[in-house]
Amino acid sequence: MARGAKARRACCVICAQIAAGIAANEAVGLQFRLAAMKIRPATDADRDAIWNIFHEVVAAGDTYALDPNISREDALAYWFAPGTHTYVAEGDAVGDGVAVPGKPTACPTIIRARQILGTYILRPNQSGGGSHVANAGFMVSASARRQGLGRALAEYCLSEAHRLRFRAMQFNYVISTNTAAIRLWQDLGFEIVGTLANAFRHPGKGYVDVYVMYRSLVS
Amino acid sequence: MARGAKARRACCVICAQIAAGIAANEAVGLQFRLAAMKIRPATDADRDAIWNIFHEVVAAGDTYALDPNISREDALAYWFAPGTHTYVAEGDAVGDGVAVPGKPTACPTIIRARQILGTYILRPNQSGGGSHVANAGFMVSASARRQGLGRALAEYCLSEAHRLRFRAMQFNYVISTNTAAIRLWQDLGFEIVGTLANAFRHPGKGYVDVYVMYRSLVS
Repeated sequence: MARGAKARRACCVICAQIAAGIAANEAVGLQFRLAAMKIRPATDADRDAIWNIFHEVVAAGDTYALDPNISREDALAYWFAPGTHTYVAEGDAVGDGVAVPGKPTACPTIIRARQILGTYILRPNQSGGGSHVANAGFMVSASARRQGLGRALAEYCLSEAHRLRFRAMQFNYVISTNTAAIRLWQDLGFEIVGTLANAFRHPGKGYVDVYVMYRSLVS
Repeated sequence: MARGAKARRACCVICAQIAAGIAANEAVGLQFRLAAMKIRPATDADRDAIWNIFHEVVAAGDTYALDPNISREDALAYWFAPGTHTYVAEGDAVGDGVAVPGKPTACPTIIRARQILGTYILRPNQSGGGSHVANAGFMVSASARRQGLGRALAEYCLSEAHRLRFRAMQFNYVISTNTAAIRLWQDLGFEIVGTLANAFRHPGKGYVDVYVMYRSLVS
């Protein structure tokens, strides 16, 4: 397979992309498909998958104010902290790797499997007299982005927040450069209620503003 | 002494108040005096005193979004969390109890002692790209209020934040009914940069707004 890559016959659309990539001497990332996606409470069996997504998101350092070098132990302690409801989105994944020129690549339809594609947490934003306001955090695998998974997670999260009788939801720290997230939250009824000047040091853009976003869950 | 309370001679101003209280069949709280007040980093030896103040402040339930029934262990874990700088204000205390009719009461000048009158914490408000913004929390013993200790702690805290090279300070959760604190923070250069509608359930006033307050520490 390695030496015959250019001649390889594509058995499906994804294999054709791989073959084209190999012909062009480029690595081709395989994308996940959100077929039969299901959101459910996380279990201990999801910890490895959650850590993989968490690490990927936080290492980029541009959307969360968390140490990009956070340990697996600390990350999972944060994501599964007492009082935190942790959920995962599970979906069909087609392929989970990268086709690299010169290396054998199985047809991704062969390695089709259920995969954890995203995760979110829902918890009280404060204790005591502030425990009726929820806070949430969302992470989506890079392989599953731009397919509506973030919105699906957020809508599910809002529904769960209603079910758990929270009266409002607050995002404490929405980085102003994360325009896709801001648009999504605004579309879901959140408002920017506070601006923290230069509160985040972006790895590429220097000091940028951070927004506090909030929406009521009661009429 | 118990039976001769009414006839007791006052040896000092405070004893005179005690005697008056006993004569009126009332308990008289003794107030601390902020003589020779010193702010310094907390040590393990301060834990009992800090817990006493913490418990007193949080049990009231009207200034912090913390469980009023928080345990000593959880409270001290919060106040001494990793990455948190914890300080105490130590001052001369004259008396530390309440004179109760029918119980012997020593002259408070006899029990004059150094006491922990207040405490504060200073820490990064976020990790990673948000770690240049400080957060702080302040607690003052009820016995030592209205004597400028809160302001002294806050000014010391701002000085420490400068020394530790923080670029801004943020209070995430200033309850709108805590007008004395809001006036103090505004006087020290903080601005209300966000309002969280009905984010706190006040024990006496129901749902009230909460402010996010912020000030830069760089010119």
